[in-house]
Amino acid sequence: MQRKALKLAVIGGGSSYTPELLEGLIKRYADMPVRELWLVDIEAGKDKLNIVGELARRMVAQAGVPMEVHLTLNRREAIAGADFVTTQLRVGLLAARRQDEHIPIAHDVIGQETTGPGGMLKALRTVPVILDICRDIEELAPDAWLLNFTNPAGIVTEAVHKHSRVKSVGLCNSPLAFTKMLAAEYGVAEKETLPEFVGINHLHWVTAAYVNGEDKLQELIARGASHTAANVKALDWDPDFLRALGAIPSYYLRYYYMRDQMLADMKSALAADGTRADIVGRVERELFELYRDPQLREKPRQLEQRGGAYYSEAAVRLMHALYTDRRDIQTLNVANDGMLDFLPADASIEVNCVVAAQGPMPLRPQRVPESIKGLLQAVKAYESLTVEAAVTGDRDVALLAMAAHPLVPSVAVAKALLHEMLDANRSYLPQFCGDIALETGANDR
Amino acid sequence: MQRKALKLAVIGGGSSYTPELLEGLIKRYADMPVRELWLVDIEAGKDKLNIVGELARRMVAQAGVPMEVHLTLNRREAIAGADFVTTQLRVGLLAARRQDEHIPIAHDVIGQETTGPGGMLKALRTVPVILDICRDIEELAPDAWLLNFTNPAGIVTEAVHKHSRVKSVGLCNSPLAFTKMLAAEYGVAEKETLPEFVGINHLHWVTAAYVNGEDKLQELIARGASHTAANVKALDWDPDFLRALGAIPSYYLRYYYMRDQMLADMKSALAADGTRADIVGRVERELFELYRDPQLREKPRQLEQRGGAYYSEAAVRLMHALYTDRRDIQTLNVANDGMLDFLPADASIEVNCVVAAQGPMPLRPQRVPESIKGLLQAVKAYESLTVEAAVTGDRDVALLAMAAHPLVPSVAVAKALLHEMLDANRSYLPQFCGDIALETGANDR
Amino acid sequence: MQRKALKLAVIGGGSSYTPELLEGLIKRYADMPVRELWLVDIEAGKDKLNIVGELARRMVAQAGVPMEVHLTLNRREAIAGADFVTTQLRVGLLAARRQDEHIPIAHDVIGQETTGPGGMLKALRTVPVILDICRDIEELAPDAWLLNFTNPAGIVTEAVHKHSRVKSVGLCNSPLAFTKMLAAEYGVAEKETLPEFVGINHLHWVTAAYVNGEDKLQELIARGASHTAANVKALDWDPDFLRALGAIPSYYLRYYYMRDQMLADMKSALAADGTRADIVGRVERELFELYRDPQLREKPRQLEQRGGAYYSEAAVRLMHALYTDRRDIQTLNVANDGMLDFLPADASIEVNCVVAAQGPMPLRPQRVPESIKGLLQAVKAYESLTVEAAVTGDRDVALLAMAAHPLVPSVAVAKALLHEMLDANRSYLPQFCGDIALETGANDR
Amino acid sequence: MQRKALKLAVIGGGSSYTPELLEGLIKRYADMPVRELWLVDIEAGKDKLNIVGELARRMVAQAGVPMEVHLTLNRREAIAGADFVTTQLRVGLLAARRQDEHIPIAHDVIGQETTGPGGMLKALRTVPVILDICRDIEELAPDAWLLNFTNPAGIVTEAVHKHSRVKSVGLCNSPLAFTKMLAAEYGVAEKETLPEFVGINHLHWVTAAYVNGEDKLQELIARGASHTAANVKALDWDPDFLRALGAIPSYYLRYYYMRDQMLADMKSALAADGTRADIVGRVERELFELYRDPQLREKPRQLEQRGGAYYSEAAVRLMHALYTDRRDIQTLNVANDGMLDFLPADASIEVNCVVAAQGPMPLRPQRVPESIKGLLQAVKAYESLTVEAAVTGDRDVALLAMAAHPLVPSVAVAKALLHEMLDANRSYLPQFCGDIALETGANDR
Repeated sequence: MQRKALKLAVIGGGSSYTPELLEGLIKRYADMPVRELWLVDIEAGKDKLNIVGELARRMVAQAGVPMEVHLTLNRREAIAGADFVTTQLRVGLLAARRQDEHIPIAHDVIGQETTGPGGMLKALRTVPVILDICRDIEELAPDAWLLNFTNPAGIVTEAVHKHSRVKSVGLCNSPLAFTKMLAAEYGVAEKETLPEFVGINHLHWVTAAYVNGEDKLQELIARGASHTAANVKALDWDPDFLRALGAIPSYYLRYYYMRDQMLADMKSALAADGTRADIVGRVERELFELYRDPQLREKPRQLEQRGGAYYSEAAVRLMHALYTDRRDIQTLNVANDGMLDFLPADASIEVNCVVAAQGPMPLRPQRVPESIKGLLQAVKAYESLTVEAAVTGDRDVALLAMAAHPLVPSVAVAKALLHEMLDANRSYLPQFCGDIALETGANDR
Repeated sequence: MQRKALKLAVIGGGSSYTPELLEGLIKRYADMPVRELWLVDIEAGKDKLNIVGELARRMVAQAGVPMEVHLTLNRREAIAGADFVTTQLRVGLLAARRQDEHIPIAHDVIGQETTGPGGMLKALRTVPVILDICRDIEELAPDAWLLNFTNPAGIVTEAVHKHSRVKSVGLCNSPLAFTKMLAAEYGVAEKETLPEFVGINHLHWVTAAYVNGEDKLQELIARGASHTAANVKALDWDPDFLRALGAIPSYYLRYYYMRDQMLADMKSALAADGTRADIVGRVERELFELYRDPQLREKPRQLEQRGGAYYSEAAVRLMHALYTDRRDIQTLNVANDGMLDFLPADASIEVNCVVAAQGPMPLRPQRVPESIKGLLQAVKAYESLTVEAAVTGDRDVALLAMAAHPLVPSVAVAKALLHEMLDANRSYLPQFCGDIALETGANDR
Repeated sequence: MQRKALKLAVIGGGSSYTPELLEGLIKRYADMPVRELWLVDIEAGKDKLNIVGELARRMVAQAGVPMEVHLTLNRREAIAGADFVTTQLRVGLLAARRQDEHIPIAHDVIGQETTGPGGMLKALRTVPVILDICRDIEELAPDAWLLNFTNPAGIVTEAVHKHSRVKSVGLCNSPLAFTKMLAAEYGVAEKETLPEFVGINHLHWVTAAYVNGEDKLQELIARGASHTAANVKALDWDPDFLRALGAIPSYYLRYYYMRDQMLADMKSALAADGTRADIVGRVERELFELYRDPQLREKPRQLEQRGGAYYSEAAVRLMHALYTDRRDIQTLNVANDGMLDFLPADASIEVNCVVAAQGPMPLRPQRVPESIKGLLQAVKAYESLTVEAAVTGDRDVALLAMAAHPLVPSVAVAKALLHEMLDANRSYLPQFCGDIALETGANDR
Repeated sequence: MQRKALKLAVIGGGSSYTPELLEGLIKRYADMPVRELWLVDIEAGKDKLNIVGELARRMVAQAGVPMEVHLTLNRREAIAGADFVTTQLRVGLLAARRQDEHIPIAHDVIGQETTGPGGMLKALRTVPVILDICRDIEELAPDAWLLNFTNPAGIVTEAVHKHSRVKSVGLCNSPLAFTKMLAAEYGVAEKETLPEFVGINHLHWVTAAYVNGEDKLQELIARGASHTAANVKALDWDPDFLRALGAIPSYYLRYYYMRDQMLADMKSALAADGTRADIVGRVERELFELYRDPQLREKPRQLEQRGGAYYSEAAVRLMHALYTDRRDIQTLNVANDGMLDFLPADASIEVNCVVAAQGPMPLRPQRVPESIKGLLQAVKAYESLTVEAAVTGDRDVALLAMAAHPLVPSVAVAKALLHEMLDANRSYLPQFCGDIALETGANDR
C-alpha cells in the first residue's frame, strides 16, 4: 500500500543527540519518508539549535534524501499537522540536573537524574511543560503520536495518560541495549532473541531471555551476564542474590539493591570529577565544537560516548513500526490497565508490546517473581504521588511523594530535601511558586 | 538458524479432514519439515484410517517431499517423542452427535454440536479422553505442544489447563474465516488486517477491525458485513442491535441472540433433512468414496464443502509460528490469567495472541463492550461447571452446569435433559456410569 | 448521650403502607423521637394522602406521642432539613404496573413488577423521579439519609450511587422475612440467628444460616424449609437442585430457575384473577375504605395481607440503627466496591452490613457458590445497562438492556417488547419521549 | 440459651502476663465460664510455670469461681478437647530477643522485636513451633479457636492460614489502646467510639475516628493526639506530614517514618540501659519476685508497667465475643481475601471485624489513603517471603525476604545480617540447620 510522507516535530531539537536521530531517519528514508523535519527549541537554546540544524542539513544533503529541515522557536508551527512529535528536552538545562544530583548527596541520599529525589524534581519541572505541549498537540495535531524520551519517562508518560487525550508512548534505550547484549552473547540476530521485561521505567527486571525459543535466563545469571550504561556505575551483582531472585535487574536497580555502595561511590566520584551533570557538560561542549565544523557531514563517532546509546535507534524503530504496521515486539512505557494486576490500572508500566499501526498492544508477562512486587509497588506509589504533585503543585502531596520514595530514609529528610530542592528550582516550578513565569522546553537531555 | 525435522501425531487421523491437513503440511514442507506424520485411530476407525492413510501417502509421493506417513492404532507409539500432537477426534462418532442435536430439540431447546446441552454432553464425553492423551504426552513427549481442535474447544482447553501440565492451545477456524472475509471486503492482504476478538470459544465478538491501521468496524456494521459457516444458519442480524452493540458477534451467537428463530429453523430443518449430523454423515460417505480412488493424489475439491473451512490452515499456521518463532498474531484459546478481568483467572478465553517459539502470548483487548460481559460470564460459568462435572463425574455438578446454561429455560428442563442425555451416552461416560469401559478417540470430527 | 429530635419526610406518603410505618415509629418513639413526620404526595394522590394522613394523626393521638404529622404536596418543604427521607412511590400508579405485567406475558415472557421487562420499565419510570428527589436533598438536606424502598430497589439504589452525592441505602423486606422464618423454625430469638445473604436485590441466595453460631443451612435444605411472599407463587424447589446448589435461593429466583412453570402459572392466574396489579388494586380499595373510618385509631389487621410484610419494620429498624449507632447486622443494598469481586465495583449489591451512625458497613460474605455467579453477573449486566438507559434515555442502550435480560429469549422479542412498552409508558418517560412533561412520585407502592 | 462450660489451653502459660489473663477470665466468669484452664510450658520454663500457676490458683480461690487450674509440660494433654488455645510463647526466650535487637543495630539497622531483621528472625523461630501446635489442634481439638498473641502476630497468623486448617485469629493490643485513648480524649464510653484501622499487624493507620457517628480524625490530627506503648519511643510526629497523610499512623510506623531518629535513639539507649530485652529482663525478674509471695492473691499493679497493656483485655474480649455470639467490632488479624485489593488475597491483614460465634467477619475499610499503599505492599511482600522462608528453610528465600525489608539498606547488608543472625539462632532453626533438635514454646512473650 502507498503511504503518505511524514512530518516530524522534535521538541528540544537543539540537543546534542539530534545527529544520531538524523542518521536513523536518513537510513530508513525509503521505508519511512520523513519529508518535513521540524527542530524546535526555546530562545535560550537558539545557538545550539542553529549549530545542530546546520549539521542536520549537511547530513541530509550528503545523503541525497528529499528531507526538509526546519529550525524554529515557534513550537505551535512545528506541531501543526505533525504525524509524530518527539520530546528530548531538559527543563532547567544541566544546571538543574546538577542540583538534582548534588543536593541529595549532601543529605546522604542517592542523587541521580531519574531515580530518587533528583528524579522527582526533574518530574516536577518537566510534567507541566510536557502537558503544555500536549495541549498544543490536542489542538493542532490531534492524530499525532507523542513519543516521549524525556526523563523520568515513566512518570512523564503516566502524567500524559492521566491528564491528556494525546496518543503517547514512553521510551527508554535500556531494554534495547539488553537485547543487543543478549544477541551478542549468543551470536544471533536481535530478532532471534526475545527478552521479557517486567516493571516500570528504570525499574524493570528481565524475567526470561529467549534465544530461538529457548529461555537462557538461568544460564545468563550463572554466567553473571549483565549490561549497564555510561551513567550508572557497573558494580557487580551478588551472584547468590541474582540466583535467588531468578531475574536480571535493570542496571538502575543498583540504586536500590546496592544503595550504600552506590552512595559511597557517588560521593568519591563527586569529589574527583563532579557528578554526571558535570561530565556531560564537558562532553557536550566538545560535541558542539565538532558540530560547528562545516566539513562535518555525518554523525561524529564521539557522540556514541555521550551516553544514551541506542536512544535514536529505539525512537526510529518505534516510529517505523507505527508507520508500517510492523507488529514487531518492542519494550515500551504504556498504561497498565490490568496487565500487572498488582499495580494501579492507570499507572504507566514498561513491558513488551506489539507495535501495530493503531498503537502498541502490551503483552502479558508470563512470570512475575513475587520478590520484586513490593519494591515495584513502593516506587510506583511514589511515582503516582509525584504525578499528582506535579500537576496540582500541592506541597502536601509533594511531601508524601518524597517521603514515599524507598531511597529517602525518613520524613524528616524528605521534608528537608523537599524544602531545599523546591527552593533551588523555584524558577521552573510555577505550580508550586505561582509568581514565577514558566520557562519551557530547553534542549539538552 | 538450522531447525530440526519434526514428528507430528494426529489423534483421530482417520478423519475426513486429514487430506486438508496433508495439503497444508506439504505446502509448508520447506519451512517446516514434518518428517514423520503419525495418523492414529481406534479399532472402530481402522477402515477409515487406512483409506485416508493411503490417500495421504499418494499425496506425499505426488508432492515429492520426504515425509513418512505412519498409520497406527497404538497411540503411545505415535505420541512418543512427538513435537506436536493434534486432536481431531469425536468420541461416540456421528451417532453421539446426532443425539446431542436431537434430544434437546425434542425439549424445545437448541440442539447443537458445541452450544447448549449438546455441547455439554460432547464435553463430558471428550474431556476424559483428552486428559488421557495428556497423561501419555506428559510421559512420552513432555515438550510437545498439544494443539486441540476437538470441540467444544474452549471447554476442552480449559480442562487441559486445569488438569494437566501439557503445553496446549485450543484452536477454532472461525476467527481466521473472519479475517479472510475482512481482507476480501477491502481488497487487501490478510496481513494488512487486524481484527480484534474478545470472548471465549464460539462466543466471541469482533470489537475492532483494523485495515492498514484504520478501524473499519463501524463501517462493517453499517454495511451489514458478516460471515458464517456451513453449520450455522445465516439468519440476518438486526441492524439496530448491531449498531447498539458496537461489535460484530460470532455466528454462533445467533443461538443466543436469535434463540427463538434458530430453534424454529432447526425444527423445520430436522423435519426436512435431519440435523447437521445427518447431513455430515452423508457428506462423509461421499468423501470416503472419493478417497478410495487410487488415482486421487491430492485433496479433492468436495472436501471444501464439508464445513470447518480453514481448520487445517489455522492448524498449520499455528504449528509453523511455534516452529519458526514467527511472532505473528493469531486468535487462540488460552488461559485467561487476568487478561479479561471479568472472567476467572483459570478460564480459557479466545483472544489475539502473538505466537513465538515459546508459545502464544495473549494481547490485551483494547475495548470490551459492557453489554457483552453478562452473557460471557454466564456461559463461562456453565463451561467451568462442565469441566468440573466432566472430571469428577459428579451428577450434582452436572445438574448445576446444565441449569446454568442460558439456553436451558429452567431447572426442570435441565434435569430432564441431563437424565435423558446421560443415559443415551452411558457407554461414553465412565466417570458417571462407572461400570462401563471407556471407548477412546474415534476419528471423525 | 443526648440525641436530637428527628424530622422524617415520606415521599409517597399517601401509600396504603403508611399506617404500618406509623405503628413502627410510634413503638420506637422513646428511642428515636420522630418529632416531625412529613407525608408528601402529588396532586393525583391528594385524596389518599388526606385519608392516610388523618388516620396517622388519630394513631399518634391515640398513642400519646408528641409527633407532628404534616401533609403536603410540596416536596421541597418536606425535605428541607430532614434527617431521613424515605421513598414509597409508584410512578404511573397501578395502571403502569398492570402494563408491566400484561405486556410481557402476551409475548410469552415473565411479566412481573421487579423482575424482567416489567422491572426494567418500572426502573425507567422511577429512576428520573428519584434522582430529582436527590437533587432536592443535595440542596435542602445534604446530611439526610435517603432510605429507598421503591422497586426495583437494586437498580434505583445503583442509580443514586452513580448519579448523586446523597447518602442512601436500598432496602427490601425479604431478608428480614427469611430471618424471621429461621428464628421461628428453631424457636429462638431473631438476634440468635445470622443468615448470610449473597447477591443483589431480588436475586440473592442464603449461603449460611447460623443459629447460635451453628450453620443450619444443610439441615434447612434437607427439610425443604423455604419462605415466600404474597406476590410470588410458592412453587416447590427441586430438592436435588437445592442440595447441589448448597444455598437457598430468594423466592424471586423462581422466575429464573422455574421460568416455564412460573410463566404457565402466570398465564392461568391472569385468565382467572388478572395479574398481581389487579389483585393489589382490589386490596387497596378495601384498605382505604377501612382507613376512612374515623373510629380507626391503629393499623388495621387487614394491612398485613397486603403483601410487603415487614417493610415498615425493616425501615424503622434501619433508621433506628443509624440514629442510635446500634451496629447490628442488617441486609441492605449498598455499593459493591470490591465486596463481591465478580461484580463491577460501582454495582449495587445486597449483603449483610453492620449499621453504625456513619452508615452501613458491608460484611464480606464467607462463601459464594461458583454456580450462582453466572446468573448474578448476567442480571447485574442488565441492571447496569438499565441504569444507563434510564439516565440517558438512549434507546440503543435500552435495547441492549432488554436483550441482556436472561428472561428475554431473543433480540427480536426484546425489540418488540421495548417498542411496545416504551410506547405504553410514554407519559412517564420524558427522557425517551422528550415532548412529555414528567409526572412525579405517585403514592402507592 | 444455655452455653457449655469451657476449656482453655494457654501455651506459654508460665509467662509473666498470665495473672492479667486470669484477672480477665475471673471477671467474665459469669458470662463465659472457663471451667478448665490449662497452663502449658516447656521444661526450661517449669519454674516460672509453677510460680505463675500457684498465683493463678490463689487468685481463683480468692475470687471464689469454680475454675480448675491445671499446670502441665504435656502440650497435647492441654490441647485435647480445648475450646480455645492461646499462645504467648517466646522461642529462645529473652536471650534470642536480645540478639534480634543487638545484631541489626551493630549494622546500623533498626533492631526491634517485631519490626525489621529482628522480627524476621523471631518469625523464623516461631512459625515452625506454632505450626506444630496447629498439627496438635487439628488432631486433638479440631473445633478449637487458636488465638495467636505471639509476635510477629501478622506473619504468624498468615503462616497458620496458609499452612493449617485450624480456625485462628491474630491479635494485638495496639488498636484497643487507641480506642481507649480516643474514648478518654472525648470523655465517652469505648462503645461510643469507632476508629477505623487499615493495614497489617504493627503497620496500620487510623483512617477514621468516629465518636457517636462523627469523624474526629482531622481534629485529632490537628491536636497532635497520638498514643504509644512502653516499647516504642514516643517521638513526636511531624504535624505537616500527618496533615498531608490524613491518617494517624500506628506507633510502630515511627521505625519507618523516623528511621534515622529512631536508630540514633536506639543506639544511645543501648549504650545507657541496653535494649528493650535487657529492660524487660529486669522487669520480669521483679515480677516473679512478687508472684512468689504466697500472700499475693490478685494481679499486682506493677504488671501494668510491663508493656503490652490491654493484651489480656483484648484476648478475653475476643474469646467472649466468639463464645457469646456478641457481634461487636474488634480489630483483628485475619485473611485478606480481597478486603484490601492492593494486597495478596492470602495475606493477613489487620482490620475491624464483627465477631460472631462462627468467627470474625472483616469490615471493608471505607477509605485507604493512596500514600500508605506503597509501604504496606513493600512490608507485606517481606512478610509473605518470610512465611515461605520459615516454612521451607530455603536460604535463598530468606535472603529475598531480608533484602525486601524497607529498613534494610542493601542486599549486601541483608546478606551479612542473615548470615550472622541465622548463625546466632541456629539452635532454634531446624528448618535451616537440619542437624539441630527443635526447642519449642518457651513461655515469656
